[in-house]
Amino acid sequence: MAKELTSREENYSQWYNDLVIKADLAENSAVRGCMVIKPYGYAIWEKIQAELDRMFKETGHVNAYFPLFIPKSFLSKEAEHVDGFAKECAVVTHHRLMASPDGKGLVVDPEAKLEEELIVRPTSETIIWNTYKGWIQSYRDLPILCNQWANVVRWEMRTRLFLRTTEFLWQEGHTAHATEADALEETKKMLEVYADFAERFMAIPVIKGIKSANERFAGALETFCIEALMQDGKALQAGTSHFLGQNFAKAFDVTFMDKSNKLDYVWASSWGVSTRLIGALIMSHSDDNGLVLPPNLAPFQVVIVPIYKNEEQLAAISEKVNEITAKLRSMGISVKFDNNDNKKPGWKFAEYELKGVPVRLVMGARDLENGTLEVARRDTMTKETVSLQNIERYISGLLKEIQINIFQKALDYRASVTREVNSYDEFKVEIEKGGFLLCHWDGTPETEERVKEETKATIRCIPLNGDTTPGTCMVTGKPSVQRVIFARAY
Amino acid sequence: MAKELTSREENYSQWYNDLVIKADLAENSAVRGCMVIKPYGYAIWEKIQAELDRMFKETGHVNAYFPLFIPKSFLSKEAEHVDGFAKECAVVTHHRLMASPDGKGLVVDPEAKLEEELIVRPTSETIIWNTYKGWIQSYRDLPILCNQWANVVRWEMRTRLFLRTTEFLWQEGHTAHATEADALEETKKMLEVYADFAERFMAIPVIKGIKSANERFAGALETFCIEALMQDGKALQAGTSHFLGQNFAKAFDVTFMDKSNKLDYVWASSWGVSTRLIGALIMSHSDDNGLVLPPNLAPFQVVIVPIYKNEEQLAAISEKVNEITAKLRSMGISVKFDNNDNKKPGWKFAEYELKGVPVRLVMGARDLENGTLEVARRDTMTKETVSLQNIERYISGLLKEIQINIFQKALDYRASVTREVNSYDEFKVEIEKGGFLLCHWDGTPETEERVKEETKATIRCIPLNGDTTPGTCMVTGKPSVQRVIFARAY
Repeated sequence: MAKELTSREENYSQWYNDLVIKADLAENSAVRGCMVIKPYGYAIWEKIQAELDRMFKETGHVNAYFPLFIPKSFLSKEAEHVDGFAKECAVVTHHRLMASPDGKGLVVDPEAKLEEELIVRPTSETIIWNTYKGWIQSYRDLPILCNQWANVVRWEMRTRLFLRTTEFLWQEGHTAHATEADALEETKKMLEVYADFAERFMAIPVIKGIKSANERFAGALETFCIEALMQDGKALQAGTSHFLGQNFAKAFDVTFMDKSNKLDYVWASSWGVSTRLIGALIMSHSDDNGLVLPPNLAPFQVVIVPIYKNEEQLAAISEKVNEITAKLRSMGISVKFDNNDNKKPGWKFAEYELKGVPVRLVMGARDLENGTLEVARRDTMTKETVSLQNIERYISGLLKEIQINIFQKALDYRASVTREVNSYDEFKVEIEKGGFLLCHWDGTPETEERVKEETKATIRCIPLNGDTTPGTCMVTGKPSVQRVIFARAY
Repeated sequence: MAKELTSREENYSQWYNDLVIKADLAENSAVRGCMVIKPYGYAIWEKIQAELDRMFKETGHVNAYFPLFIPKSFLSKEAEHVDGFAKECAVVTHHRLMASPDGKGLVVDPEAKLEEELIVRPTSETIIWNTYKGWIQSYRDLPILCNQWANVVRWEMRTRLFLRTTEFLWQEGHTAHATEADALEETKKMLEVYADFAERFMAIPVIKGIKSANERFAGALETFCIEALMQDGKALQAGTSHFLGQNFAKAFDVTFMDKSNKLDYVWASSWGVSTRLIGALIMSHSDDNGLVLPPNLAPFQVVIVPIYKNEEQLAAISEKVNEITAKLRSMGISVKFDNNDNKKPGWKFAEYELKGVPVRLVMGARDLENGTLEVARRDTMTKETVSLQNIERYISGLLKEIQINIFQKALDYRASVTREVNSYDEFKVEIEKGGFLLCHWDGTPETEERVKEETKATIRCIPLNGDTTPGTCMVTGKPSVQRVIFARAY
């Protein structure tokens, strides 16, 4: 196979990079840290978008669009927010280029300097809350439940395709509420939506939890998250939902008249997931042969490859395949028939394994005679010969089985590397093996900081549904209210 | 009515601005020239996107995503392209902010100056052709048929919501081909897609044509366009499809080995439509009562308003309405039931007229008794009482009728203000009345420039299906091969 991958065991990081490139998902661009998302990678993003968008709308949200640019002064209005983002901003300072006086190329026109610099949005709380000020007067204007699909820019120093890029695509929900309880309920509701999406569509089991203060979103009172575990034992934050309290309403002076005619600041949430999810998808399921895509997000779920000796055979096979394709499509299954004559079947098999197509069907002259097909599963790499009788129902069932199997495999893996650790000495040994470590912690940022410095592990979250037996901190011996999850993370 | 609009006759421009704001489509943001697209406006854009995306995919295109930023040096590589865009670029010069030394707010960190400035994309030919260089070696790699949905920035001095904004949303198709004929065929094919979309979905009749050299896209050999006519007699360019020849392939050195093993430059097309279409949609059909939306693009096609005296009546009506709603939805019709108790029916009627909902159904106690509904059409503002028997088929037919009626009205209007003009004196009188003027022109940029300076009219296009009888230029008396369309334009 021409497109051989580095194996995961040899070098997991290289395996990931190889896979993203060779499966045609994305590549680095001429612009430092910015990626080109190639058609196959973008098709996965479109699947993610479609499902999430449907889930957002079913929970009462609408889409809108806010400006790409944020006036510099807006960033300063929320003290913690500015600390979080000022150091990684793309700053627009001019609005025109001119021919260079030396005749060589273009230079910035000094006459076209902006009065106030504009920041390319790293996130949109500030511009959106400045807008909401005009939309909200009374409790009757609440809640506002807006989402936006957009690109954002954070000037990252070390980037990796999908996982950490200077520009990335995401959705950001920004909601406004009359009460603290409503805003908190919304924050938790969207965490559930993310968890449900991750598990049912991405087939990635996630732990729902709360971030420690160190890992909290800049400007939030509380950050809820879903944490996933990759095959190399490192954690990946797959989505966050922030309870913002009245911080942004205060920063942008957004008040409303409540039912009792009292003026109060508006309560807020924000929540987002990004193209980073594609990185999580790749790293959760794929193997040394390439991608393994869950059927619920695969750009096409079934590929059909004909094996033939001559045009006549191909014509006969194609006719039968067209019947099968129509039946599969009637069940809502997406199918690609690859009758490209320039490539041999073996090449195609390797290619679709690399691209993670869940099911491969092969039809040859013998199959045509016998009324059968060869069915190959990507997840288990097993093959069997199946009758064409009710093939659409068989494939439909198989896709569901694959979806469940992929999830279960990830769940079993996580279970196998999740364990309780009770002393810091033990922790230092165990953290080298990867996985989720359930440990008692005294609740202080200092202890978390020390663990991070000494072991590169962070608190991924304080689990919402974890064991709440109290204990003593593995580092300081001080009281701990419950175990939290430590891991090294992407 | 609280939300009264300026009438079109009184001040067409003000009517447009009022309507965009009052129908909750969009508003100006804190960032000069950038708009906030509000949920109702964005819902129209989502409808536009969904249909166009389907049409692109049916014609063999795939989506991808390319970086927001373009290195400054890329712009200079295609000589005409740089002339067209350098003067209206948002330029990123730094990647970090820092606390101001005087303690007041943030300043750009001088240490974080970029080696090479980045331009926020005004269009993506340069970054995409730089990428295609890595994708194309042989004729087997062609064609490439990519589209991207994205935001772009052009630093416009005078902006108007939807029609001309500094940032706007659009799609841009960028295709690569082995032959001139293939690239030209693609260019024309996408023009047909745009025309078909404009007429069947937006209900806007368009003239397909070619731009004169003055109006051509910067870097194209030929620009094809669809031109629409607004109710005030001004033209609006609704979409363009560019034949780029080998210009960008040469600028970025993109060559391929053809079937005969010869190296040649790749041929290109690019094509785009933007949120400007929403401006065209508004100005084509709407009236002094508000928006008139074609059913094929309305966020909801039917609104149902109950009229009731008490809770009991509302409950009985709601039960019936739920049945009707289910039937309508089964026909693919989108419905909103507005049982909001805070607003009176009269307020709701005005509100949905303002928002251009194609059909309003009203059910009161009498209707419930009689098994009827009041059906009001937004396009004609007529009302009738209709039996509930087969109501879903009636409404489905009515929506189709409205779609056709809106298109026909726009077509009739255009016909009424399109006329042949044979002398420049006559032209100067007629251009004041608006509309499309079919005139002979000598084919020179100088003559077009003179007409523009003296009358503010431009050549909208050389129609593809126009009368090709030759004549003499209305300005210079020189020979003309066919009549072209002059108009004042947005």
